[in-house]
Amino acid sequence: MIDLWYTESHTENVRFSIKINKHFHSETSEFQKIDFFESTEFGTFFTLDGLMMVNEKDEFVYHDMISHVPLAVNPSVKKVLVIGGGDGGTARELTRYESIERIDMVEIDEAVVRACQKYLPLTASKLEDSRVNLYFEDGVAFVKDKKDEYDLILVDSTDPIGPGEGLFTRAFYQDCFDALTKDGILVNQHESPYYQRDAIAMKKAHSKLKEIFPISKVYQFHMPTYPSGHWLFGFASKSFDPIKDIKKDEWNKFGLKTKYYNTDLHVGCFALPTYVKEMLDKNE
Amino acid sequence: MIDLWYTESHTENVRFSIKINKHFHSETSEFQKIDFFESTEFGTFFTLDGLMMVNEKDEFVYHDMISHVPLAVNPSVKKVLVIGGGDGGTARELTRYESIERIDMVEIDEAVVRACQKYLPLTASKLEDSRVNLYFEDGVAFVKDKKDEYDLILVDSTDPIGPGEGLFTRAFYQDCFDALTKDGILVNQHESPYYQRDAIAMKKAHSKLKEIFPISKVYQFHMPTYPSGHWLFGFASKSFDPIKDIKKDEWNKFGLKTKYYNTDLHVGCFALPTYVKEMLDKNE
Repeated sequence: MIDLWYTESHTENVRFSIKINKHFHSETSEFQKIDFFESTEFGTFFTLDGLMMVNEKDEFVYHDMISHVPLAVNPSVKKVLVIGGGDGGTARELTRYESIERIDMVEIDEAVVRACQKYLPLTASKLEDSRVNLYFEDGVAFVKDKKDEYDLILVDSTDPIGPGEGLFTRAFYQDCFDALTKDGILVNQHESPYYQRDAIAMKKAHSKLKEIFPISKVYQFHMPTYPSGHWLFGFASKSFDPIKDIKKDEWNKFGLKTKYYNTDLHVGCFALPTYVKEMLDKNE
Repeated sequence: MIDLWYTESHTENVRFSIKINKHFHSETSEFQKIDFFESTEFGTFFTLDGLMMVNEKDEFVYHDMISHVPLAVNPSVKKVLVIGGGDGGTARELTRYESIERIDMVEIDEAVVRACQKYLPLTASKLEDSRVNLYFEDGVAFVKDKKDEYDLILVDSTDPIGPGEGLFTRAFYQDCFDALTKDGILVNQHESPYYQRDAIAMKKAHSKLKEIFPISKVYQFHMPTYPSGHWLFGFASKSFDPIKDIKKDEWNKFGLKTKYYNTDLHVGCFALPTYVKEMLDKNE
């Protein structure tokens, strides 16, 4: 019996390793290296350029938090744009809302979607929903000419290195602002406060977003397979405050069963540790 | 240059590794193996029986959350019992309150305290405070004959294997209840919901506590070096509800600068993910 471990560097001085049963798929797309593994602890998981993206054990945390937080603030959302999110988990959560009419999903790398459709149906199976329109394009370019079109944009990106880099720029956030309707909300993958490299990305993203959106907050969740397990999303909005304007009753009437999200946790997750607040408040 | 890594098994299928500069102290006490390391990412840290206890980078999270949460609910606490906590970090946070008159600290293993006094002054230096009384005894036995004596008991224990085992029993929680004054609060290290072994310990602790205390809640925090990074404390109390009865203004008047804790986060940290609530609510 071979002893096989997947090891990821969370910093140059910290490693996280998962015992795997097999490394069953590997390909190099036009954009990145894609690898799929089967493990006892996390089920099937895949990496992009050697970084954990999605696994069957904790994907529910990330996908609950990227989707249900904005939907509880504006339960009337009809048109949504997902940028990135090639695994399909974010789109899957959106398809649970019958009230959502259109989900445009723009993923730069078709190979990620095709591999997830084959190997990770847990997240990818709802990409077949008739309201989901798949575009295999650069999200940065896609959003540029859209005006007043989406009620919600979810940026489900990789880190700001490689293909995800453009999704952390001021110009992109401005284009998102313009693409949103008057009560529009942008939620974006916002890195982590704990290790230095992630914290720098977090601070940069926030300082750009708050220059553009009248309301810009950050919320946290427990994501055990991401570096430090302390992960963040940004909530930027034209009119709605994510805490004051939550519609708890309306959201609860959807009757969605969720494993991580609930409306009490919604309010709680915006209460950040003091050191994180201080990093975000500093203008750099 | 040698390449030296400290590796800890978080489950049999998950490993967490820290690059270390040196492994500079190792001893086997009457109770356990004690090891000290120096690292670039986490500064000095020590392990007991090969499990990370305290490091200079994230100890503030744990020590803020074990101490300031109960002090904001009852800022009039005068007499405190700390069980375990040999590193001194919990006692350190308590000494910051001038209003606290007595801190009895009962640590079964004197060797842990002596090593921390030598190698980890960041947490251990306030054990010299004149209000701190050190007892090198078994906490389980110590608390047995105490009646109506402490306003607050903090159980800063290891996992329920080895020396910490007795600190997770129904009999011990009942003795704590009896040792507390009429508005007494017990906060205890409550493991984690994410990996199965930790989750079993979490459920057992909670089901025992809620049989004994009229109020029994659980709160969460981000502890990057503990398995999964998703860690919990239990808050059990004779009269105070940890959310409704928070005294924000009174606590803020103490003027303590904290890096993790704040009174908004206090309320937020009791809002647990749905799957954690469901595990805690189930009677097993």
